Amino acid sequence: LNVLSRIFNANSVAVVGASSNPEKRGHIILKNIIEGGFEGRIYPVNPNSQEILGLKAYPSIRDLPEDPDLLVLSIPGAGIPGILKEAKGKKIGGAIVISGGFREAGNDELEKELFFAAQESGIRLIGPNCQGLNYTPNHLCASWPLITKNGSIAVISQSGTVGAALSEWAEEEGIGISGFVSLGNRIDIDETELLAFFGEDPNTRSIALYLEGVKRGREFMHTLSEVSKKKPVVILKGGRTERGKVAAQSHTKSVAGSDAVFDGVCRQCGAIRADTITDLYDTSKAGAFLRHPVDSLFIITSSGGSGILATDFAEMEGISVPSLDAEAKSALSNVLPSHCVVSNPLDLTGDTDALRYKVSAETASRLNLAQTFFLIFGDPIPHALEVCQELKCDIPQQIIVSYLGGGETGKSESKLLLEAGFLTFPTPERAVKAIAKFKSGGDSK
Amino acid sequence: LNVLSRIFNANSVAVVGASSNPEKRGHIILKNIIEGGFEGRIYPVNPNSQEILGLKAYPSIRDLPEDPDLLVLSIPGAGIPGILKEAKGKKIGGAIVISGGFREAGNDELEKELFFAAQESGIRLIGPNCQGLNYTPNHLCASWPLITKNGSIAVISQSGTVGAALSEWAEEEGIGISGFVSLGNRIDIDETELLAFFGEDPNTRSIALYLEGVKRGREFMHTLSEVSKKKPVVILKGGRTERGKVAAQSHTKSVAGSDAVFDGVCRQCGAIRADTITDLYDTSKAGAFLRHPVDSLFIITSSGGSGILATDFAEMEGISVPSLDAEAKSALSNVLPSHCVVSNPLDLTGDTDALRYKVSAETASRLNLAQTFFLIFGDPIPHALEVCQELKCDIPQQIIVSYLGGGETGKSESKLLLEAGFLTFPTPERAVKAIAKFKSGGDSK
Repeated sequence: LNVLSRIFNANSVAVVGASSNPEKRGHIILKNIIEGGFEGRIYPVNPNSQEILGLKAYPSIRDLPEDPDLLVLSIPGAGIPGILKEAKGKKIGGAIVISGGFREAGNDELEKELFFAAQESGIRLIGPNCQGLNYTPNHLCASWPLITKNGSIAVISQSGTVGAALSEWAEEEGIGISGFVSLGNRIDIDETELLAFFGEDPNTRSIALYLEGVKRGREFMHTLSEVSKKKPVVILKGGRTERGKVAAQSHTKSVAGSDAVFDGVCRQCGAIRADTITDLYDTSKAGAFLRHPVDSLFIITSSGGSGILATDFAEMEGISVPSLDAEAKSALSNVLPSHCVVSNPLDLTGDTDALRYKVSAETASRLNLAQTFFLIFGDPIPHALEVCQELKCDIPQQIIVSYLGGGETGKSESKLLLEAGFLTFPTPERAVKAIAKFKSGGDSK
Repeated sequence: LNVLSRIFNANSVAVVGASSNPEKRGHIILKNIIEGGFEGRIYPVNPNSQEILGLKAYPSIRDLPEDPDLLVLSIPGAGIPGILKEAKGKKIGGAIVISGGFREAGNDELEKELFFAAQESGIRLIGPNCQGLNYTPNHLCASWPLITKNGSIAVISQSGTVGAALSEWAEEEGIGISGFVSLGNRIDIDETELLAFFGEDPNTRSIALYLEGVKRGREFMHTLSEVSKKKPVVILKGGRTERGKVAAQSHTKSVAGSDAVFDGVCRQCGAIRADTITDLYDTSKAGAFLRHPVDSLFIITSSGGSGILATDFAEMEGISVPSLDAEAKSALSNVLPSHCVVSNPLDLTGDTDALRYKVSAETASRLNLAQTFFLIFGDPIPHALEVCQELKCDIPQQIIVSYLGGGETGKSESKLLLEAGFLTFPTPERAVKAIAKFKSGGDSK
């Protein structure tokens, strides 16, 4: 963990293969490190340049003014073992090998050479054939695309694209990520070590994992169990079907194994499985935001249809949507206009303002109608954030939100709600599906 | 259909309850009709104003210079029957009653009064208690939010919010809608009539339907069968579970009936069921864009992981992803760099440009490796649109696309692709799930 900590919290980064050509990865990564706001020293390394992106460039790592905490290597794969050998004796923390052309391309020999060169030089490796690392607490985006928004979801992915997609969505929604690591061929640092790191990381509240196969089964299970006790670990696995397994084997040379066995492992270790990239995102988000397990829902909505769809999904996912007794109906009727439909879901109807949500939720809270309140805004209703913030102070129930069909008001309120820490989803079904993974009783599925 | 056609293609619209107060629906709708670019005559009706939003206002519908094709009514519900009685003898086409306060609020008497007033005056009604109508071929957004982008999906919805959400997504993605009608309490014009209208409408290529219950079962089934022969009809039903049914009954007084029976009806009539709002959108979109049924996929990707997830989903959904024989492998290997993984899915790896997709697809087309090609762009790859356009001319196979993890390039290319008519999805799983509804053999589910 110490080495990983030095990598993630690096004070100095050298980019070998840094380039002035905007199409090269060595350019994009250097640019993202700079534009991501990294506050440490940045050393472009390129024998053919004096200066790249406004920074002094060095001909080789031997010429650097210090031993950097992190090397990012983006030169043709065949040159990489040589660079690592050059680094022998230096006190470099770790290296990310972006370059491909190793085992995934049939070059097993080159991958072995890389492995031994790293061992010899004592440098820990991420990759090769990967999309780098991003750690927002250190403003270190040694990856692409440029993601800077700090949040509490960590993404570990055997697919750069899956990790990039999750990071982009988190940036767009304004919730951000704590980190993203692309595993690549994981010849050294693997999912188990990274899981342990993010398990300890105080900036991370949930971990999203995309895997095609597990490298060290026993250690993985042990770590997964330990980390899952502390924070939710959500896993999407590629290669669940017969054809998918064949494809996974071609991709990362992972032996996917039986999906039923993997399912059993997740269950036994307390991890949560996702079934799509969207579900991986939604569930990790729920895991990062939820403060309590979800067992029962009181649904307050401006949209009758959305309330019904939420109720359907809750029943399908095994979350209770308790009916109202006479006392509850009477108490709610007393504080609401007569055209509201007083039931659970409570339909405030399309003419509602945000205040009507507040009054309803406060009344429902006093009557303790459920342990989690699901507020669905299905029209352009301003001040949703204000009301949720007031409710958060006033009532003990956990609040989750869905905002849809609300035009520009909906888009801005959704973002404000997420930034303020309210678990908000674009549809009622996505909300219920995600929170259902956190039912009390721990029936993770 | 003649009356509906006059309503959708109205040349003149009067908004009763038009208002200068931006918080009133009578303001929002008038504004949307104006800003939506409606080219006919617009008459605000309000006894207390001379002018609203720059237009001359009239004290009552008696004072209008012509009998408008369409009335939009947004005044308190109790006043509506009176307005319709005023209209008796006039040659008004139809009316949309936005206002609530009728049966859904327990006022069965007022709803009956409205029904008889409409009958007496010979005016056909949409609503009451609804979110209006939008018909983009006529630039007529008598609804909210303001949606102007013309497309080929028609949305008929018993929930204003579900319809608004679909319309917003279509606008955001740049694919637009042909129309949106909010059913409300549907005391007159109902889903069956609207289905028939959009079935005939040359601007509409697929129909998305959100329903909680069917008004006229026999006629609905007949029309659904007829329309489904011409274009896909995708149905999301609220009230599928026990608790959901109770909620549906409160919302629109619909008796939801057994979900299994409804499922049988859809199957028998050739309609397609969706299980979430997202799925309703994705499937209607696929229905509007696809030109042929989907039976087998050749997957070309820059992202190994995305290719695997697509393969997993294809197998789960019963779409074939055929393995490559030696001839195909050799032909593809000959045109690709050696580090590409030549299989189905074909992994061009993260360093690919758009051209590599073109070369691969052309080769795969000559070998006839599948009937639909699924191009997954999992990195910021410029010129995706150009290549897809060239392929569309060059090869007979149907092309579908997913673009994810591609940063700003991905966002702009996705939008361009959709606008150019390429069926494009934000994740491989959403793509496969949607197109699987259009398997050859017609196994709609």
